[in-house]
Amino acid sequence: MSKTTDRVRQILSWYSSDNPGVLNNLARLMNTGALAGTGKFVILPVDQGFEHGPARSFAPNPAGYDPDYHFQLAIDSGCNAYAAPLGFLEAGAVKFAGQIPTILKLNNSDTLGKLEPLSAVTGSVKDALRLGCSAIGFTIYPGSAMRNEMYQEIREIILEAKEAGLPTIMWAYPRGTGMAKEGEQAADVTAYAAQISAQLGAHIIKVKPPKDVVYGEEAKKVFEKYNIPTKTLADRVRHVVQSAFNGKRIVIFSGGETKDDAGVLEDVKQIAAGGGFGSIMGRNAFQRPRAEAVKLLHDVMGIFKKA
Amino acid sequence: MSKTTDRVRQILSWYSSDNPGVLNNLARLMNTGALAGTGKFVILPVDQGFEHGPARSFAPNPAGYDPDYHFQLAIDSGCNAYAAPLGFLEAGAVKFAGQIPTILKLNNSDTLGKLEPLSAVTGSVKDALRLGCSAIGFTIYPGSAMRNEMYQEIREIILEAKEAGLPTIMWAYPRGTGMAKEGEQAADVTAYAAQISAQLGAHIIKVKPPKDVVYGEEAKKVFEKYNIPTKTLADRVRHVVQSAFNGKRIVIFSGGETKDDAGVLEDVKQIAAGGGFGSIMGRNAFQRPRAEAVKLLHDVMGIFKKA
Amino acid sequence: MSKTTDRVRQILSWYSSDNPGVLNNLARLMNTGALAGTGKFVILPVDQGFEHGPARSFAPNPAGYDPDYHFQLAIDSGCNAYAAPLGFLEAGAVKFAGQIPTILKLNNSDTLGKLEPLSAVTGSVKDALRLGCSAIGFTIYPGSAMRNEMYQEIREIILEAKEAGLPTIMWAYPRGTGMAKEGEQAADVTAYAAQISAQLGAHIIKVKPPKDVVYGEEAKKVFEKYNIPTKTLADRVRHVVQSAFNGKRIVIFSGGETKDDAGVLEDVKQIAAGGGFGSIMGRNAFQRPRAEAVKLLHDVMGIFKKA
Amino acid sequence: MSKTTDRVRQILSWYSSDNPGVLNNLARLMNTGALAGTGKFVILPVDQGFEHGPARSFAPNPAGYDPDYHFQLAIDSGCNAYAAPLGFLEAGAVKFAGQIPTILKLNNSDTLGKLEPLSAVTGSVKDALRLGCSAIGFTIYPGSAMRNEMYQEIREIILEAKEAGLPTIMWAYPRGTGMAKEGEQAADVTAYAAQISAQLGAHIIKVKPPKDVVYGEEAKKVFEKYNIPTKTLADRVRHVVQSAFNGKRIVIFSGGETKDDAGVLEDVKQIAAGGGFGSIMGRNAFQRPRAEAVKLLHDVMGIFKKA
Amino acid sequence: MSKTTDRVRQILSWYSSDNPGVLNNLARLMNTGALAGTGKFVILPVDQGFEHGPARSFAPNPAGYDPDYHFQLAIDSGCNAYAAPLGFLEAGAVKFAGQIPTILKLNNSDTLGKLEPLSAVTGSVKDALRLGCSAIGFTIYPGSAMRNEMYQEIREIILEAKEAGLPTIMWAYPRGTGMAKEGEQAADVTAYAAQISAQLGAHIIKVKPPKDVVYGEEAKKVFEKYNIPTKTLADRVRHVVQSAFNGKRIVIFSGGETKDDAGVLEDVKQIAAGGGFGSIMGRNAFQRPRAEAVKLLHDVMGIFKKA
Repeated sequence: MSKTTDRVRQILSWYSSDNPGVLNNLARLMNTGALAGTGKFVILPVDQGFEHGPARSFAPNPAGYDPDYHFQLAIDSGCNAYAAPLGFLEAGAVKFAGQIPTILKLNNSDTLGKLEPLSAVTGSVKDALRLGCSAIGFTIYPGSAMRNEMYQEIREIILEAKEAGLPTIMWAYPRGTGMAKEGEQAADVTAYAAQISAQLGAHIIKVKPPKDVVYGEEAKKVFEKYNIPTKTLADRVRHVVQSAFNGKRIVIFSGGETKDDAGVLEDVKQIAAGGGFGSIMGRNAFQRPRAEAVKLLHDVMGIFKKA
Repeated sequence: MSKTTDRVRQILSWYSSDNPGVLNNLARLMNTGALAGTGKFVILPVDQGFEHGPARSFAPNPAGYDPDYHFQLAIDSGCNAYAAPLGFLEAGAVKFAGQIPTILKLNNSDTLGKLEPLSAVTGSVKDALRLGCSAIGFTIYPGSAMRNEMYQEIREIILEAKEAGLPTIMWAYPRGTGMAKEGEQAADVTAYAAQISAQLGAHIIKVKPPKDVVYGEEAKKVFEKYNIPTKTLADRVRHVVQSAFNGKRIVIFSGGETKDDAGVLEDVKQIAAGGGFGSIMGRNAFQRPRAEAVKLLHDVMGIFKKA
Repeated sequence: MSKTTDRVRQILSWYSSDNPGVLNNLARLMNTGALAGTGKFVILPVDQGFEHGPARSFAPNPAGYDPDYHFQLAIDSGCNAYAAPLGFLEAGAVKFAGQIPTILKLNNSDTLGKLEPLSAVTGSVKDALRLGCSAIGFTIYPGSAMRNEMYQEIREIILEAKEAGLPTIMWAYPRGTGMAKEGEQAADVTAYAAQISAQLGAHIIKVKPPKDVVYGEEAKKVFEKYNIPTKTLADRVRHVVQSAFNGKRIVIFSGGETKDDAGVLEDVKQIAAGGGFGSIMGRNAFQRPRAEAVKLLHDVMGIFKKA
Repeated sequence: MSKTTDRVRQILSWYSSDNPGVLNNLARLMNTGALAGTGKFVILPVDQGFEHGPARSFAPNPAGYDPDYHFQLAIDSGCNAYAAPLGFLEAGAVKFAGQIPTILKLNNSDTLGKLEPLSAVTGSVKDALRLGCSAIGFTIYPGSAMRNEMYQEIREIILEAKEAGLPTIMWAYPRGTGMAKEGEQAADVTAYAAQISAQLGAHIIKVKPPKDVVYGEEAKKVFEKYNIPTKTLADRVRHVVQSAFNGKRIVIFSGGETKDDAGVLEDVKQIAAGGGFGSIMGRNAFQRPRAEAVKLLHDVMGIFKKA
Repeated sequence: MSKTTDRVRQILSWYSSDNPGVLNNLARLMNTGALAGTGKFVILPVDQGFEHGPARSFAPNPAGYDPDYHFQLAIDSGCNAYAAPLGFLEAGAVKFAGQIPTILKLNNSDTLGKLEPLSAVTGSVKDALRLGCSAIGFTIYPGSAMRNEMYQEIREIILEAKEAGLPTIMWAYPRGTGMAKEGEQAADVTAYAAQISAQLGAHIIKVKPPKDVVYGEEAKKVFEKYNIPTKTLADRVRHVVQSAFNGKRIVIFSGGETKDDAGVLEDVKQIAAGGGFGSIMGRNAFQRPRAEAVKLLHDVMGIFKKA
């Protein structure tokens, strides 16, 4: 543990209704890795094995079939934390005890059958404690016909996690029967998903980088009337962060599909410029050869450090 | 706490089957703010971030993106209470501890996807207690195909809340597959929704200002036969209040969409003239610049004070 | 509810590990009555009916046989709160709903038989919630052979109370088989009892005004070596307050046996001069004729206001 | 059920923190029998079979071996209620369904062995509900080394009974290792026991007629100083009733050992004159031949009617 | 979090039956402070306020009355962890969140009365989680008549703590009716207490530095027969460490009463030479002026670093 900086203290002050256990774990995330003390985050998430299947996830860099690989990558590259489903964490938690905060992603959705996307709860607060995790993660699909079930599920889990001193990271992915494809990453929809996550009590909110689209009919009128800029990714990130309690909830952005280094870094610059708190970078990290991945993550961290 | 007036005592006497904890919190709501002791209410509700999305809610007055803003607005304008979903309350509950009674709105419906409106339970009585709330709030949609699920849900929650000394405020919004658009704010429908809420055990009932429409076929015959007046808003408010146990349940009225000051105040005069117990004013308050909002709320309170 | 002053905010900051519900109730106690906003306390406790029997308690002023009397006295004299066992609170909680914060004294010891003093748990957190209380109270007897049972009992109750948003007031009375009579109010013993209460998680600690005695053999050496003054009551109060986390836990002092006005006020001046947070004044209040009691309490509050 | 009189209404108003179920049962007791509407009580209790053994209880009038006998006696004589242990109630509850309110005496102490008197919990709130009882009864022994266990036991049961709409009648018998024989019916001790019962949340308190003794050292000083009269039974009853929340808790008096008619009626006159709410008369009723018992009970009721 | 060294990995390998949560917290303790990575420990414990009373504990350096002081001292001097009872941790846990691992000392014994030493359970695993602790602490008194109650108590708590990922630190202090004064710190007794602690499942064992005494009759014979050296403290420490599973359980040594710097450092050198894993230094740290304390702790750490 390092000394807590003023910035970390400020961020913690936004979560004053939480107990010291939750604050301690939030601080732990912010006091770890290359970005320690900056209040910025780079997190390595590896749930694609469950979500997309093993070959789609790990064939590009077969070292990633091995659970140890990702722990080591997160540690060596100086990430704040490593997030994964139960199995991956169980496989490495003893070997890497004390080396990197972990986040138990405790619902997951497979894409094995041609089925409506829907997450199963595949872990518990008890699992998170026995595995020594510093936080839990949970995915909601706003726009899905099943959204309310997810909202209710996560509310009960958040309450239990809080009592055990664990903060919650919400993966907020708008999708489902109520949402056309072009809405999923629209600026208004992403901001709305961030707001819902914050209202549900999430401590950290993870969304996709929003696109220059405003999807909702009513939202469109408002964006036009009040000249809410959406042209650059930085503009849109700024709106999303503002929508998360005026920036008083930590919002981090995923990288999405694999891109070249320049593409990744350009996105990150925009995210940082827009006031984003960090990146959660999975495929763009673990699907690259290790040395390239470490270098890319360092470059990403460099951008956030300067922000 | 201030001395309880005869009027507050009279209102409390209508809830004599409740335990002292519930009465204490009802009294607390009535003993707070500019209307303390009058038995009248002006409540600031801010659940639109969840219900309509952040930009639609807060772009008109971007200060409202910040959860602290609404606590402070409710305090400074002399509201009886501030109502919001869990996240907004968590964000400010420590900072504003002891300064304004809060109401945890513990179900919420987003309008992000194009989906049947349906609320998820996003909070609990346990949350209300740990956040120091003075009441819980819950929305029902009479006329929805899912109405019975909601009625059953809230009954269980009311029972649990009562044991913990918390009164319940019912947001009663007729809508859904069983209800044509023009019925949603009809005089008979609004009165019916108030009656249902009272029968379900709500302590305070919040409805929209009814329009000069009688929607139900059977209701129409009765309204005509017995000359129930519906021409002015005051007439219709009177019928709704009568329908809530002959005025023995507190009924308050929302403002609905943003209007100019004159429009808001004219509505409030009619509500007060018809015997309404108060206004719950969200968008008409927090979407105005702060100074204007405080002035408008003071004017609204002035009308109720004279009533 | 009144606006929270800087002093109240400062006091609340010492309890930062508590949830907003607990802070809200602490703020409520500090925002009530003639001392609202000062961070000082005058509390009316009436548990003597149970502890000493009815005639010994109420014969001097027979109006006190009536439970309503004490509610009204606490309200009219401007106390921060009224503390009593379950029966007295049940008898008046509806009539006085919303008028004065109440504290459920949830263990009590009778002196009817000639038996070792030992408190029975005569109420619960559930009772406190249904009666609308703002805090719970609990007595421990450090020095008693049964002390550990009491410590364990109250720890479980504090944890349950915290979850329900209720702070705990500890009545700390050293006595019992391990403690000679002259130790019961010794300066070192009182300070030690305050320290134990704070370590057990009490939010407010109530002790008797310490006497100019140092009781423990080891303590005597330390008091001498470090010149800890104990001559005046103010000196001793200062040491007790320091012993409660360097003044970061609220410590209030009882009045003890009935005295004349001058005696009471002299004690209070010393308590205030020593940094005491207030007085909890039972017999010296309710055993006087009402007008005299109100006057005396006002005078006491006047002293704390100036402190 | 008959119309509730102003007096009954007044008595019910003292129990305003209770739910309508409890009030309903209290009203049922007061609206039954020859004393219906007066707020006075004559109750037939038959727990002596358990407490003293069958022959000691029923040999004087062998009809009393039969459980039906007591139901019929209570009905025919116009009692407000019949109180008994579980077995007696089970034996007659169907046959006499709807004819007389019953009270399940749910702890009992046998005197079969030479053992410290101590009651066992021999029934439950669930039993009371399935047997259609209108109240539960419970004995405490203030002054016993086990008093605290009893106080805690009854508090938990009262809370459960209240939720089920059942009021509690406390049999308060000071006795045990901390109490000399002459203290058991002393005026101060009886008043203290009534106070404890009221503070524990009892709705109706049953004590023995106090004797002209003041037992406690401290109490003696107070009785002398404030000239509390104890010469006549009426004096002493007055003090006991005052000690039960200034008469705001119902206090009834047992008859004790069998006496002649004149003795019984003289006691009752004094009890009525002192403001007692009634008599609970067991052995003096069921150990007499039926006709005599009915007559005596009628005479007793006559006295309370005139009071 | 820092990279785990080979030594830390080796120590963790001795606890392979524990879950990753427990190992993670053990690693956290070993990866913190000036001794991070060495597998050595210096822990600051401050439970003397509860155990010895406030003046005896804090008068020598009055800054220590303030709970913040000890958190800051532990952080600034580079301790591995800070151990304290519930109240002290609650007071600072939010302010120092993320800066130092904390250990909830969850039983405590006061010395206020002249009573048999016996610890009360004053905290729980639930408390440790909500306060963000990295371990729990528990005291046993081998040799006490109550030892078995303590052993059983801690076994249940260890099991619960393990499930929550929390390791246990055992304070093993032989004393009580079965143990003469000279036995309390005897070499054989200390080694025996360490063995018992290890057999009970403690992860870290804290004992007093053993004296050159062999207390047990049978033990004496064995020490002589097998020439177990006890002349130097290093000799005795070596025997104690060997007795804790041949050094496969972490054993740390307290400093005991305040000494001068030379005395403290000489002891520490011997402890280090004997293979002790570290020191737990309370009074010798917090009773010195801050600058001296920090310097002394640094010197102590310097000795362990070189060992």
